[in-house]
Amino acid sequence: MKLLRYGEIGAEKTGMLDAEGNVRDLSAHLPDLSGAALATLDELRGIDPAQLPLVAAPGRVGACLSSVPNFFCVGLNYALHAKESGLDAPSEPVLFSKATSALSGPFDPVIIPRGSEKTDWEVELGVVIGREAHYVSEETALEHVAGYCTVNDVSERAYQIERLGQWIKGKSAPSFAPIGPWLVTADDVPDPQALDVSLALNGETVQSSNTSDMIFSVREIVSYMSQFMKLQPGDIIATGTPAGVGMGMSPQRFLRPGDVMEVTVAGLGSQRQEAVAAE
Amino acid sequence: MKLLRYGEIGAEKTGMLDAEGNVRDLSAHLPDLSGAALATLDELRGIDPAQLPLVAAPGRVGACLSSVPNFFCVGLNYALHAKESGLDAPSEPVLFSKATSALSGPFDPVIIPRGSEKTDWEVELGVVIGREAHYVSEETALEHVAGYCTVNDVSERAYQIERLGQWIKGKSAPSFAPIGPWLVTADDVPDPQALDVSLALNGETVQSSNTSDMIFSVREIVSYMSQFMKLQPGDIIATGTPAGVGMGMSPQRFLRPGDVMEVTVAGLGSQRQEAVAAE
Repeated sequence: MKLLRYGEIGAEKTGMLDAEGNVRDLSAHLPDLSGAALATLDELRGIDPAQLPLVAAPGRVGACLSSVPNFFCVGLNYALHAKESGLDAPSEPVLFSKATSALSGPFDPVIIPRGSEKTDWEVELGVVIGREAHYVSEETALEHVAGYCTVNDVSERAYQIERLGQWIKGKSAPSFAPIGPWLVTADDVPDPQALDVSLALNGETVQSSNTSDMIFSVREIVSYMSQFMKLQPGDIIATGTPAGVGMGMSPQRFLRPGDVMEVTVAGLGSQRQEAVAAE
Repeated sequence: MKLLRYGEIGAEKTGMLDAEGNVRDLSAHLPDLSGAALATLDELRGIDPAQLPLVAAPGRVGACLSSVPNFFCVGLNYALHAKESGLDAPSEPVLFSKATSALSGPFDPVIIPRGSEKTDWEVELGVVIGREAHYVSEETALEHVAGYCTVNDVSERAYQIERLGQWIKGKSAPSFAPIGPWLVTADDVPDPQALDVSLALNGETVQSSNTSDMIFSVREIVSYMSQFMKLQPGDIIATGTPAGVGMGMSPQRFLRPGDVMEVTVAGLGSQRQEAVAAE
């Protein structure tokens, strides 16, 4: 299933894509697509999207999940990106988080913070946890995954690296976490380690890789994280970005108002954001 | 007002302390004490606790807030603690976060993770955000604070420091974030920078300081953080711990099953946790 939320910010309705890619109104069956709702996804499998009301003009697409308990990220999970960041490939997953208030829709503008000169892009495979996971093995880890989505892990490099301490400071501004357009349920993603990921800036491809290049697989990441914490339904894990971010370019290149990003994970849908200056 | 949640895990009811320190049942006025509910706190001010039903046997006290969007922490915010950690006092606030699944009640056991040998304690003043805060000045920052609570920022030092990368890994195990017993509304805390904080281990005081010793005040922290992210109602900010953690002792001393912590911020109530081994 490809599930989504559409409508104005704060008033999104739930939808399901039909075989033709049209949005169907799912709200009679699912009031919102939130962490708690992921427990009931199985009940939706019997629904024939063609029987749901067609939404002729869905308008804005929202973040594909609401009420996210935690937005976790894995750092340096592609060898070439670790290298372009001037760091060694990690021997175990590097974890950090984004403020959940950073979440935004896949086509909403990315807002460059006041005074920011180093706002950067990062296409990533996003994992959505569906069942509580604590001390789970790699063998059973994927049973705890509800689905997947495209993520742009927008990052302010000066805040992240030059402003003392932990990365969260550069990962958390409003609009720094576009997710979606769809939450694609795990049964529709036969192999999460075989997905093309790419990002184009103003039409030029700057990131292009495949999740087969991840140092730590989704299975390994979920099991690993569950040794340190209890993952909850609705938690999102962004699994790291491949090479090609602005910080790694020579000369470095960062977002300016008017720049347009197209962010794609194959099968999970494409995002498109225009960078704008904060008010 | 001193507000609390009491009852078994997942079935807590809301309560208010009366003048004698008895719990009164607030659930008819407030279904749960969550981020969203903080917008309606003013409506509770007209209530005379003596008119609410007396709860003769409240039983377990839960975390004083549910549905917390983010649990942020400030690191190294007391000069002597920075020194005992072998680090310089920071020139601007160091930020990190805990998984929200770490939240627990103030008298619930603290669970030492499997194989952990370096689980440590940290008494802290907790700040609860009541109104969205983005780009707010120090002058108006406290208008965005709903109240305060006692926090034990339980930390696994090997996970935090020796396991690569960011601190979140050592801060996020279940039971690593006891909060409460009460959420004390800001109008009942005339000066958040004049509160004694202390922690006793098995009856021996190991941490003893005052929030006047914080390097960055609550006002400065809220304003600072709001430059990097949008703080949301229900967000908790633990504002750093004073000297006296186990990692800073010589020789180092960490929690073993049966150890008992008593954790106090003056006016915000005391916690008591026994350390137990994870199953």
